[in-house]
Amino acid sequence: MAVYTHVSDEALSAFLADYDIGSPRAFKGIAEGVENSNYYLETDKGRFILTLFEKRADPADLPYFIAVKRHLAAKHFPCPEPIIARDGEALRSLEGRPAVVISFLDGLSPRAPTPAQCRELGTGLARMHAALKDFDQTRENALGPAGWLKLWKGRASEADKLETGLAALIQSDIDATVHARPMSTELPRGTIHADLFPDNAFFLNDRFTGAIDFYFACTDALAYDIAVCINAWAFEAGAEYNYSKGAALIAGYESVRKLEPLEREALPLLCRGAALRFFLTRLVDWTDTPADALVKPKNPLDYAQRLRFHRTVRSAGEYGVE
Amino acid sequence: MAVYTHVSDEALSAFLADYDIGSPRAFKGIAEGVENSNYYLETDKGRFILTLFEKRADPADLPYFIAVKRHLAAKHFPCPEPIIARDGEALRSLEGRPAVVISFLDGLSPRAPTPAQCRELGTGLARMHAALKDFDQTRENALGPAGWLKLWKGRASEADKLETGLAALIQSDIDATVHARPMSTELPRGTIHADLFPDNAFFLNDRFTGAIDFYFACTDALAYDIAVCINAWAFEAGAEYNYSKGAALIAGYESVRKLEPLEREALPLLCRGAALRFFLTRLVDWTDTPADALVKPKNPLDYAQRLRFHRTVRSAGEYGVE
Repeated sequence: MAVYTHVSDEALSAFLADYDIGSPRAFKGIAEGVENSNYYLETDKGRFILTLFEKRADPADLPYFIAVKRHLAAKHFPCPEPIIARDGEALRSLEGRPAVVISFLDGLSPRAPTPAQCRELGTGLARMHAALKDFDQTRENALGPAGWLKLWKGRASEADKLETGLAALIQSDIDATVHARPMSTELPRGTIHADLFPDNAFFLNDRFTGAIDFYFACTDALAYDIAVCINAWAFEAGAEYNYSKGAALIAGYESVRKLEPLEREALPLLCRGAALRFFLTRLVDWTDTPADALVKPKNPLDYAQRLRFHRTVRSAGEYGVE
Repeated sequence: MAVYTHVSDEALSAFLADYDIGSPRAFKGIAEGVENSNYYLETDKGRFILTLFEKRADPADLPYFIAVKRHLAAKHFPCPEPIIARDGEALRSLEGRPAVVISFLDGLSPRAPTPAQCRELGTGLARMHAALKDFDQTRENALGPAGWLKLWKGRASEADKLETGLAALIQSDIDATVHARPMSTELPRGTIHADLFPDNAFFLNDRFTGAIDFYFACTDALAYDIAVCINAWAFEAGAEYNYSKGAALIAGYESVRKLEPLEREALPLLCRGAALRFFLTRLVDWTDTPADALVKPKNPLDYAQRLRFHRTVRSAGEYGVE
């Protein structure tokens, strides 16, 4: 939620001269996205978002992310569409950073999603999976089980500093999920968003108007995307599970695609794995972020509390699967 | 440059229900302004900025700032116009903060203003002074000489920490300006912006499209506003004075209103005083801002370097006054 890279007048003019999107009328840094710099850009031809990719983004991944969005846009799934410059490329360079101009998406991110919005989100997620069914590029989930082990290595004492005894619990989550996880390769797979938090979903009233920020998209179990959303949408502050929100989200998803028996069976472990993924990346950010950083790290304990819930769940029915 | 206060979905809906500006279609925190939270708000009826005033704003001053903008807008000077709610008020409340919706102003803030833009800015400043000539509310400049003494008290050692010997130089600036300053009351006075940095001015190409952020506006010598702009627009990185930019700015101003002999005579001291004002507020922010604050304080040394230049100036001609 910051602007890391400033864009000079000359650099912006030179950059836009390579597009057919008109002359700028407004250009404002916006507090959207955590890892990159984003600008609201208005021209006499329309509204856009300009993203500059900062250090954490691997340049080798960027063409994949752009291809995902172009595929979705071509299938009329609502998401920001990368704008092609005159040279035929969407991925270009500005102020020494890889940069992309994307179309502006109407809608507001819900701060406290309602069950109706959770249902819409579930439907939207399933539509996204369907639209990506024939997308043929693949990308490994860098934040899958192998990634969790890397993130966790040497962090046990940091976890115990947050809460006495937490390290042993996290180790039990890792043991339960990492070793069970090969099963996920048997689940229906495809291209997933992998980070569809309320920040990354837009609504007009209760209508889902689209998803943004595909910078964790990858190839993985489709039900893992549902597990991420259950963690992100169906817990209240204090990490209490909101059954009606979770059930609405799953019902929305199943209105488009019914879960297979194996996916239902796997759901508790997938939810536990998804919570572990966000706990671990937040733990790393929490311990590695300098105190004077521009962006405040999020407290990993929110996800330690979700893990506490997931450890007790015995069946998908407890999340609201009918 | 941050969003300090988050706005819940319910609070935003309830807030907007009291206006005739339509339903929100987009709502994004923007990195504009240093002291308040600002959101880009788009509705089906237009584009707006929503500002929430944070702790540093004195609520008693807010009606004055709003009145300045409404007066300017009524005179067709380009600035954000405060939107009146159904109850007849522009200043309302949101998330426990005073809040105002203002109209959206097209244009881009120059990062490296050109001489042509400096000239336009000078013209714009003079037009603003003219438009405010019959504005009858007054507000003391809280960051005038009496304020400088308060800011400086007990800070000498902090200044010397920045640069050995700086404290004595700053003391000489204070002695020269604070005691000479009663003269400023003899200069033509009026309502001034007092903070018209490039961040607060918008352009489309070289055309000035308006000024924003009137939250330091006050009643003071008109030429002091020129002195602020000379400091903000006519120095290069490294604090070298750019004579052609300064001369263009002053010529632009004088194309609307000729400076009086006393104003020319006072200009070097006014420039020195304006540099001192920004040095002192930055010194306070620099030493008082916790290392983990959301907004990085600006380095006061930029203004110590400008002061070094102003100390050598003997006449307004050296700034480019013809």
